Amino acid sequence: MQSFIELSKLFEEKFSIRHFPAHTATLYEPAQYILQLGGKRVRPVCVLMGNELFCDIIPDAYHAATAIELFHNFSLIHDDIMDKAPIRRGMETVHQKYGESTALLAGDVMFVRAYEYLNKIAINNLQKVLHLFNQTAAAVCEGQQLDMDFEKRITVSLDEYVGMITLKTSVLLAASLQLGAILGGAGEGNQHHLYEFGKNLGIAFQVQDDYLDVFGNPEKFGKQVGGDILSNKKTFLLIHSMETASPEQLKALQQLMQNNAPDKVEKVTELFKECKVDEWAKALKDKYLQTALQHLEDTAVIAIRKKPLMELAAYLIQRDY
Amino acid sequence: MQSFIELSKLFEEKFSIRHFPAHTATLYEPAQYILQLGGKRVRPVCVLMGNELFCDIIPDAYHAATAIELFHNFSLIHDDIMDKAPIRRGMETVHQKYGESTALLAGDVMFVRAYEYLNKIAINNLQKVLHLFNQTAAAVCEGQQLDMDFEKRITVSLDEYVGMITLKTSVLLAASLQLGAILGGAGEGNQHHLYEFGKNLGIAFQVQDDYLDVFGNPEKFGKQVGGDILSNKKTFLLIHSMETASPEQLKALQQLMQNNAPDKVEKVTELFKECKVDEWAKALKDKYLQTALQHLEDTAVIAIRKKPLMELAAYLIQRDY
Repeated sequence: MQSFIELSKLFEEKFSIRHFPAHTATLYEPAQYILQLGGKRVRPVCVLMGNELFCDIIPDAYHAATAIELFHNFSLIHDDIMDKAPIRRGMETVHQKYGESTALLAGDVMFVRAYEYLNKIAINNLQKVLHLFNQTAAAVCEGQQLDMDFEKRITVSLDEYVGMITLKTSVLLAASLQLGAILGGAGEGNQHHLYEFGKNLGIAFQVQDDYLDVFGNPEKFGKQVGGDILSNKKTFLLIHSMETASPEQLKALQQLMQNNAPDKVEKVTELFKECKVDEWAKALKDKYLQTALQHLEDTAVIAIRKKPLMELAAYLIQRDY
Repeated sequence: MQSFIELSKLFEEKFSIRHFPAHTATLYEPAQYILQLGGKRVRPVCVLMGNELFCDIIPDAYHAATAIELFHNFSLIHDDIMDKAPIRRGMETVHQKYGESTALLAGDVMFVRAYEYLNKIAINNLQKVLHLFNQTAAAVCEGQQLDMDFEKRITVSLDEYVGMITLKTSVLLAASLQLGAILGGAGEGNQHHLYEFGKNLGIAFQVQDDYLDVFGNPEKFGKQVGGDILSNKKTFLLIHSMETASPEQLKALQQLMQNNAPDKVEKVTELFKECKVDEWAKALKDKYLQTALQHLEDTAVIAIRKKPLMELAAYLIQRDY
């Protein structure tokens, strides 16, 4: 069994080929461009880990991992268009560099390529794999739509937010693990536990991400602290503080959100602390992490084989910050 | 064997169900919306016709036909975003009605749904069907990109234009027929002939479309006559006239294209006639139609079974106007 770093390297080696023909260059160069921006390749590594839990990694696991990474990049291209994001991984986004229409099409054709990789998978697993992949792709679209819907709403409940985050980000992690497990011949019970491990890990990661935006060490976090506060983004922290604030605190919070005063981040952070959302968020993250680990525990495979997935959880979720 | 009208009705009956779940409504209503705008359903009927050439229509042919129609509508949603088109089939386009971001996602999720229908196809045909579908989907994206590229260029050769049109519109017609044939158990030779029949028919149709824009009876054609001339669209007619015009005619044409003078359509039409592009276009359309019919002729199936496809050709391509 191999660690995250080892599998990430292995995958990167195989993945760093051209995935598109030379022609039509005006379409395929933009598609190839985003793939070269790198990334941690967490999702494809999850496919490999899910597979290696049950057998030595088979070639079909690389096909599925490649499809997952192409799907992920397709969704990034389209999300960046919707979010009008100019930068990704320190570089221009595809639409910023090549125009929106080309980016839209480059995303579409990358999605097609993902299916072409899936189509290399042995026939006995093909229908199951396609079904899970389709279900997941639709869920990711639903999650993105809900995210946009929530932006326009005044309040969003915690349950609604967890539901959206699950669809938008966690199911892809979950499905990646399950795809690897299917290709490894895992039974339905084990597939389910791995799926739930990935799903809960994904939610824990998102709680952490929302927490670090406010309370993180800016040097370690690598993003502007308070970015979510400045954009009034509905995060775990904002949603919980609005659900638990006193009428006075709620009024103060709403006033702060009406504009971007110079002390907005500082003041909102103070309010968050008064509402104890920092403690709450840590506990919530731990809850999801524990649920994830319990599902890994319940996976009917000898403990030693689970080590890389334990390490993955530790890599993604820091216990203290 | 059934006629185009009969098969179109049959398909419409099966197709006019909801193809998406109730939730997330903000995503799935817009997707469902475009499907209800109707259309001739030429491509799915081609799947059924390609199938019925070799056997009684099997349920898998309806799955493939549904996937093709969903794919076609996905590409319409995304094309309309790129073209900033406000109207389709007399109704608001999806992005006009629901916003660009939702339209983008509704297209994506419709594409996923197409694959889910393909995944219902019997396992012995699944890989072949998926491969042809993927190849075709990528070609359609390439065609759309080339179309956008050509808009920015001063000159486009006839060969380049035929290549673009083939990718953008004809291969989908061709692949629809071939999909039906594959599911009917046709051999590779027959699949090839049907594909070429559809491809050449599609090109003939496009030549006709370009011709009718200028020389068509506006009442029959249903579009504004000269619309392509007003937008300086590179059509079969414009490309050929630029390739064959005398230096004086070319200069006059280029001057007319620099603005939209009130007599632009009339003057350009005169120039087209001087260059005899009307005669040329009729001959070119006939050439592609004859090539298409020859491939149908060469399909190794008794003549009587080919009648609906002969009728389809006659329905799509009018011999005189």
